[in-house]
Amino acid sequence: MYKNPHFFSHLAHVELISPKLEESANFFKNIIGLEESGRSENSVYFRAWGEHYHHSLKITEGTEPGLGHIGWRADSPAALEEAAAHIEKLGQGIGWIEGDLGHGRAYQFTSPDGHLEEIFWDVELYEAPDQLQSKWKNRPQKNPGRGISPRRIDHITLFSNDVTKDREFYQNIGFRYNEGIFLNANEPGSPEIGAWLSVTNLSHDIAFLKNHSGKPGGFNHVCYAVESREEVLLAADHILESGYELAMGGPTRHALAEGFFFYVDEPGGNRFELYAGAHLVFAPDFGPYRWSLSENPNDAWGREMPWDASGKVIK
Amino acid sequence: MYKNPHFFSHLAHVELISPKLEESANFFKNIIGLEESGRSENSVYFRAWGEHYHHSLKITEGTEPGLGHIGWRADSPAALEEAAAHIEKLGQGIGWIEGDLGHGRAYQFTSPDGHLEEIFWDVELYEAPDQLQSKWKNRPQKNPGRGISPRRIDHITLFSNDVTKDREFYQNIGFRYNEGIFLNANEPGSPEIGAWLSVTNLSHDIAFLKNHSGKPGGFNHVCYAVESREEVLLAADHILESGYELAMGGPTRHALAEGFFFYVDEPGGNRFELYAGAHLVFAPDFGPYRWSLSENPNDAWGREMPWDASGKVIK
Amino acid sequence: MYKNPHFFSHLAHVELISPKLEESANFFKNIIGLEESGRSENSVYFRAWGEHYHHSLKITEGTEPGLGHIGWRADSPAALEEAAAHIEKLGQGIGWIEGDLGHGRAYQFTSPDGHLEEIFWDVELYEAPDQLQSKWKNRPQKNPGRGISPRRIDHITLFSNDVTKDREFYQNIGFRYNEGIFLNANEPGSPEIGAWLSVTNLSHDIAFLKNHSGKPGGFNHVCYAVESREEVLLAADHILESGYELAMGGPTRHALAEGFFFYVDEPGGNRFELYAGAHLVFAPDFGPYRWSLSENPNDAWGREMPWDASGKVIK
Amino acid sequence: MYKNPHFFSHLAHVELISPKLEESANFFKNIIGLEESGRSENSVYFRAWGEHYHHSLKITEGTEPGLGHIGWRADSPAALEEAAAHIEKLGQGIGWIEGDLGHGRAYQFTSPDGHLEEIFWDVELYEAPDQLQSKWKNRPQKNPGRGISPRRIDHITLFSNDVTKDREFYQNIGFRYNEGIFLNANEPGSPEIGAWLSVTNLSHDIAFLKNHSGKPGGFNHVCYAVESREEVLLAADHILESGYELAMGGPTRHALAEGFFFYVDEPGGNRFELYAGAHLVFAPDFGPYRWSLSENPNDAWGREMPWDASGKVIK
Repeated sequence: MYKNPHFFSHLAHVELISPKLEESANFFKNIIGLEESGRSENSVYFRAWGEHYHHSLKITEGTEPGLGHIGWRADSPAALEEAAAHIEKLGQGIGWIEGDLGHGRAYQFTSPDGHLEEIFWDVELYEAPDQLQSKWKNRPQKNPGRGISPRRIDHITLFSNDVTKDREFYQNIGFRYNEGIFLNANEPGSPEIGAWLSVTNLSHDIAFLKNHSGKPGGFNHVCYAVESREEVLLAADHILESGYELAMGGPTRHALAEGFFFYVDEPGGNRFELYAGAHLVFAPDFGPYRWSLSENPNDAWGREMPWDASGKVIK
Repeated sequence: MYKNPHFFSHLAHVELISPKLEESANFFKNIIGLEESGRSENSVYFRAWGEHYHHSLKITEGTEPGLGHIGWRADSPAALEEAAAHIEKLGQGIGWIEGDLGHGRAYQFTSPDGHLEEIFWDVELYEAPDQLQSKWKNRPQKNPGRGISPRRIDHITLFSNDVTKDREFYQNIGFRYNEGIFLNANEPGSPEIGAWLSVTNLSHDIAFLKNHSGKPGGFNHVCYAVESREEVLLAADHILESGYELAMGGPTRHALAEGFFFYVDEPGGNRFELYAGAHLVFAPDFGPYRWSLSENPNDAWGREMPWDASGKVIK
Repeated sequence: MYKNPHFFSHLAHVELISPKLEESANFFKNIIGLEESGRSENSVYFRAWGEHYHHSLKITEGTEPGLGHIGWRADSPAALEEAAAHIEKLGQGIGWIEGDLGHGRAYQFTSPDGHLEEIFWDVELYEAPDQLQSKWKNRPQKNPGRGISPRRIDHITLFSNDVTKDREFYQNIGFRYNEGIFLNANEPGSPEIGAWLSVTNLSHDIAFLKNHSGKPGGFNHVCYAVESREEVLLAADHILESGYELAMGGPTRHALAEGFFFYVDEPGGNRFELYAGAHLVFAPDFGPYRWSLSENPNDAWGREMPWDASGKVIK
Repeated sequence: MYKNPHFFSHLAHVELISPKLEESANFFKNIIGLEESGRSENSVYFRAWGEHYHHSLKITEGTEPGLGHIGWRADSPAALEEAAAHIEKLGQGIGWIEGDLGHGRAYQFTSPDGHLEEIFWDVELYEAPDQLQSKWKNRPQKNPGRGISPRRIDHITLFSNDVTKDREFYQNIGFRYNEGIFLNANEPGSPEIGAWLSVTNLSHDIAFLKNHSGKPGGFNHVCYAVESREEVLLAADHILESGYELAMGGPTRHALAEGFFFYVDEPGGNRFELYAGAHLVFAPDFGPYRWSLSENPNDAWGREMPWDASGKVIK
């Protein structure tokens, strides 16, 4: 009888590579308004004010923008061990590492397309210094009110040269496949353009978009969440007044997953999404909803698609 | 090594007893704006527009307002069998029933305080008739825009004569204990006034408040969610213009769980809560945050407490 | 010494011509959610729930969509007489008419481009029937919560074959010129593409866009206001779920006047705008702010312009 | 024939007295987020980011908190002279002064209860330094996003020992009387507890509350506006996280004037209100709506009144 594995608890952090470390760090600290929570030789660490761990974003200096790695929190100590064994059996395992600032030993693996990932249990729960302590004990710290000041990381969207393969791998390790895009969803075997998956009740914790470049392990964007669409609208003005541009014409609503969002490219060249109002998924048999490219699942209200006719992302 | 059971997926439905069935049904249909999805001899069934099952609310005629039963969706077919075995072992099991409109066989059990509950896997996924089909395939139906038109059920709050016992039972069946209220949280053994638990990423799927009446299986309120605090504010005017009263002075923010809410009592005498903006919980080691009664966890912004000094709910 | 005349109080109503009267009436009643307040042989009258007069919109059957006339409330009985005398002197006067449903004698005139207008003082203040009476005495009626349910008319935007002439006429009768668009605002004598004027503290009560057709008295859109940008977002979904399309890609923010808006074309062919969040103007020497076409004053966040390079509206 | 005078354009600034000048200045700059725009020996000047003048708030050191003076912008140069002549005739004139930072000669007068006021025409329009210039030319400066960052001053509420006399004086100088509170509005001659008046389309630019102290020229609060109710909610958390308290239980909706608001007392002892969502008034014959004290016009949703049974403000 079918039983869902629960290896993973949620997306804990993302490492991005930036060729302009200090400019990227300034952007995430002062324009987005994350909290700088640590530094190492080539990296700066950030957390959002509503998060309980050491960091949800690590920016590391490098020659090309893109993904460093993705960090997942296991569901329990036992789940971590089971996850490692299961992934090893699937042939995607790398092995154990000692950890990083804020978390202990982690099991590394890669997605079929080559994205570096890790899963861990031991973490250092964040303790705010006196001046950042919240009046409310269930908040890990005060909302600093600097820049956009998102509450938490939401999801990561990657490029994959084989969306089907990556999607199936995530389903095999316990992710629910919620929504997908196909060149023609009504045609069996139609090319798979995108897949949205979650291990939490979020609309997605991870998504894949078809990569046409052949380059492995590609990155599309990382997304942080605010708590209202009004905050997304206020943030749009703030981004422009800060000297940055909104990609693709500013705030609108995704049809797929329903998030109200905008994209902005940080100085290091990585895309950042701000998000509110995405639906939550509770039914274990929600979806998968299969969209055709022509239905423009990117935009509920009728704006131009970010894809060309072959499903290649062009914006 | 510790491993979290995942028997339960989420809160699927609540049955309430009303001594004024038609007035209650009219309230939930026209003032709250739920969709009537079925009728049986003594019951009317409702679902919110964003829900995937046959109903999330069943109103049954009876002499006194209060809880009929609570329905939980299992995480999988295997999880249902495991849940039944586990609960039977805990001595709270009743046995299998055939089901109800919209779902199949269910395992009945009671909480230690005597609330009737059930867990099931087989459901009839909702299919909207043509005129209610949404333009967007990931919505089970159009938002009808009638009354408040909440998107989904959020949680249920019960009275318990022994909060500690109920809370421990739910922890034993896989719920995370997120927050609690004690007469004095800093004093070991201080009376437990309330407990908030979840099996999803919601701030709570179920909560218990100390009952001083001795009557078993007490009900405090059922809560539905809209997607923005602005909608809660608009709904407050709507409730009053419809001839109902807001309990406790209208919209404000809970400190505990952070929901922006109001309460209104439906004509049958059951309390209804409208909700937006509660935090989500992702870290498996979030909390439990232990509040003292004097910290007024009911209200973040300083309004009078709904409890007397002994922790008895008085409003 | 300069003294501002105060002939006009505010925009009271707009008459639109529709070749599909019943379809237009159904749209304004059930999709937009205005209140039908009267009928005559060829016309249906509507008011928004927060308005104090008999109607703010009159739809009259006719062969081509477009403007019927615009009705302005005078500032006082004396101001009405002074306005009539002043406009007559300017050569734009037509003469007095007896009135219409809901208002008394009115002085008719035309803009230089030929839009038919009227100014009046005597009105019938709206009295709600019992079932529509609001709980709050300062509301003319309950918010019916049907469709979008805007609170009030906001402004009207017209086409003019000579924006400069129309703008100067309105300035001569006491309107403040707040903002304008020129092909190149830095070049003296550059063609005037648009002008925004107000007699209230709104960002504009009337606006003109350059008409390239030569046809006199052209109409671009009529705008109604809701009270929050969140309501504009909710309304966008409602419009699409009701089977209509959003023009130009749905909700975004105007740079000029700052309204958060969308456009939708009603079945008769007239454009409707929904609006929230436009700035208010208090300083009597606010502006005029002169925008160049290339600055895209239509969209603060970077979407494509609705004009071609000559300033012709193309969307 | 009746004609409305238009001497006044709008509320330009308020001077408050603080016994703790630097603490008050810090509150308005860093917690509220106004821009410091000048200093003189005993005063600090502030403006909100969306305002066009030098300042809308002046804090002056003094022994007791309260009102310094109120500054009104005239409607035109001629209106200023007419206003001065008219007020002198009414016996409330003081005479001309040279001006202050940011504005030229002003005519001083007092309300019947002794509030010091002034009206002026000549102003220095604000020019933002390069680093504060907005991307959008119709904004006087960037929204700095510091603290609450309100857009503009909204209104002032005063105590008066004779509300009727003050209300009639303002009506005589061209203010519209919109709403009022009486001990019993249905009883002719019932004591007048409050009056709300405006010269703009705002719900009120000035209001009076019955003073029972006998002390002349009393001050209740000054109010600034944000553009959405969501911002009021976000600001409520910010005020508490900054170590201040919300008066009277935090955000709620006024029935009278409909503003969604909260009050907070600044360190010098003056009350500050934050506001969004108040209705606008367009009809010149709107109201006056006469409320009875028992209808609780302070709160639309049912919270306790800030008055005792005699109409004395007690909170």
